[in-house]
Amino acid sequence: MANCSRARSLLSLMAIRSGASASSPLRQFCSSAALSKFGNVGFIGLGMMGSRMVNNLIKARYRVAVHDINYDVMKMFADRGVPTRETPFEIAESSDVVITMLPSSSHVFDVYTGKNGLLHGGNFLRPWLLIDSSTIDPQTSRKLSAIVSNCTLKGKKDDQRSPVMLDAPVSGGVLAAECGTLTFMVGGLEEAYLEAKQLLLSMGKNTIYCGGTANGSAAKICNNLAMAVSMLGVSEALALGQSLGITASTLTRVFNSSSARCWSSDTYNPVPGVMDCVPSSRNYEGGFASKLMAKDLSLAAASAKEVDLKCPLTFQAQEIYLELCKEGHEAKDFSSVFRHYYGGSDE
Amino acid sequence: MANCSRARSLLSLMAIRSGASASSPLRQFCSSAALSKFGNVGFIGLGMMGSRMVNNLIKARYRVAVHDINYDVMKMFADRGVPTRETPFEIAESSDVVITMLPSSSHVFDVYTGKNGLLHGGNFLRPWLLIDSSTIDPQTSRKLSAIVSNCTLKGKKDDQRSPVMLDAPVSGGVLAAECGTLTFMVGGLEEAYLEAKQLLLSMGKNTIYCGGTANGSAAKICNNLAMAVSMLGVSEALALGQSLGITASTLTRVFNSSSARCWSSDTYNPVPGVMDCVPSSRNYEGGFASKLMAKDLSLAAASAKEVDLKCPLTFQAQEIYLELCKEGHEAKDFSSVFRHYYGGSDE
Repeated sequence: MANCSRARSLLSLMAIRSGASASSPLRQFCSSAALSKFGNVGFIGLGMMGSRMVNNLIKARYRVAVHDINYDVMKMFADRGVPTRETPFEIAESSDVVITMLPSSSHVFDVYTGKNGLLHGGNFLRPWLLIDSSTIDPQTSRKLSAIVSNCTLKGKKDDQRSPVMLDAPVSGGVLAAECGTLTFMVGGLEEAYLEAKQLLLSMGKNTIYCGGTANGSAAKICNNLAMAVSMLGVSEALALGQSLGITASTLTRVFNSSSARCWSSDTYNPVPGVMDCVPSSRNYEGGFASKLMAKDLSLAAASAKEVDLKCPLTFQAQEIYLELCKEGHEAKDFSSVFRHYYGGSDE
Repeated sequence: MANCSRARSLLSLMAIRSGASASSPLRQFCSSAALSKFGNVGFIGLGMMGSRMVNNLIKARYRVAVHDINYDVMKMFADRGVPTRETPFEIAESSDVVITMLPSSSHVFDVYTGKNGLLHGGNFLRPWLLIDSSTIDPQTSRKLSAIVSNCTLKGKKDDQRSPVMLDAPVSGGVLAAECGTLTFMVGGLEEAYLEAKQLLLSMGKNTIYCGGTANGSAAKICNNLAMAVSMLGVSEALALGQSLGITASTLTRVFNSSSARCWSSDTYNPVPGVMDCVPSSRNYEGGFASKLMAKDLSLAAASAKEVDLKCPLTFQAQEIYLELCKEGHEAKDFSSVFRHYYGGSDE
């Protein structure tokens, strides 16, 4: 976890700095009363996504305390006057709601149930609501939700309300996290979702209630598998078209006015030069890393195996992205599959 | 070819009848002077697509003569006062431009080069422009184009102009053919494309010039392979989501507001009940048959092999559609892959 967080920290510094600049003086915002019923928000996981989400919470005048295992990132927030906590448990102790934004299922499980974790191995919780925005497998979301709902709220022995966990992964990537235009896919109790909606909308532009526990996580991995398969289909089609003598720009125009139209062709085209302001036009830098896509496809493939569903394209997509990572392109945007796997030439 | 045409004929009768009703009295239209430089249009292939395209040519007041090997279909047109010809060669002899809309590469090759074919095995042609709107492999388009351009125009010995073939396959399906809203993807000489544009727009709403010879055919098979892969990705994702407990409607809403958005999710959703007026909501009747998708994927796969390009998802998609056909679903719309291959349940 340390290495992972260390790798994220450098990239996070820019976000933290830009956040400080955009909402300065932050100290003043941090001490402002939040508009929501959640007076104190705890946030765990200050990576590329999380640090930007915190910035937007602060802009929306929530009182936020943060935690990350990376000391440098924590210090950056502390220097801006944002309260920091040494452990997830300390976050839980001082918050009405806790949001986690972590790299994988095991990180989330550890932050919830580990030593000095949110639940501190015990049965009592201060925050009645825990929101996990990480992209993790639905099985882990379901397991953690059950553990959380078996806890009792501290100091409210007579209150019948149980703590609640919502799985609320996001779509939109780093830029959307920065601009506060994320979409949250939320699974869990609908009542809790409705109470959390205002809080989520301070970091995003849209929330979609997906039904019961773990349905947010399920929606996210299903979305990403469909996106990956689409990207691969568009990449194969554009590579084949170029080999047959038709330019990617022309072929993209055909797709976008026809039945091959998709986000990977009209918004995030994988061929350099076809669109401005997308990773393919800046050497596949930024965006959504291939290693993250490989991870999401692994979650989808594992889920498909668990429910005994044949998903040949999902498995094939997973293999392709694992191969891409092995070949050293794991940090490149996932649209780089066009160049590095299909060997497409530039226009 | 006879069987194939026979199978199409019954379905064509409705189109012919509706055409007669929509533009009656047709006899008057047929004898009207056409607005374009192409006074006499020959049309070969009166299947589900072709018969509807002819109706729109007639509505636009072109003088059209038609040919099909199916006598019943020919008779229906003759009864409406549309001139019919016994052979492709007779069509060529009476036309300034000939449009073909046939089921496969071999049909097109035969109509062009066979006994009593358009070229009549000779070197002289009356029409200076031949337009093939069939979906065929780029190799055949290229070969036929070369043969055509080596012919000499009849009675124009001093004219330097050579006959020209355009490959101009369409997207949009039967409904678009009926409504005149097809999109033509055109390969060949740009000058010829510009001269043909008005004619094409009488059957469609859009034309896209794709570059040199065979680029229209290439664009079409690339579009359809990307569409097939997208449909399979969306189907796997929706089937997986349902297995994990999330409804297809909710998941579709997630996709359409996120990065999995595509034509197969927002316009042609494969799950019954999610959208009105799509094949999945009428037991996968109508639309684009799985056997046609299997054929197009075979063309794409063959082209990929020829240019030595790895296209694993294309090959996998081809296998899935061939399997679907073997299982007896060849006449169902290609979105039926959701139910028949992935075994998705209704909502």
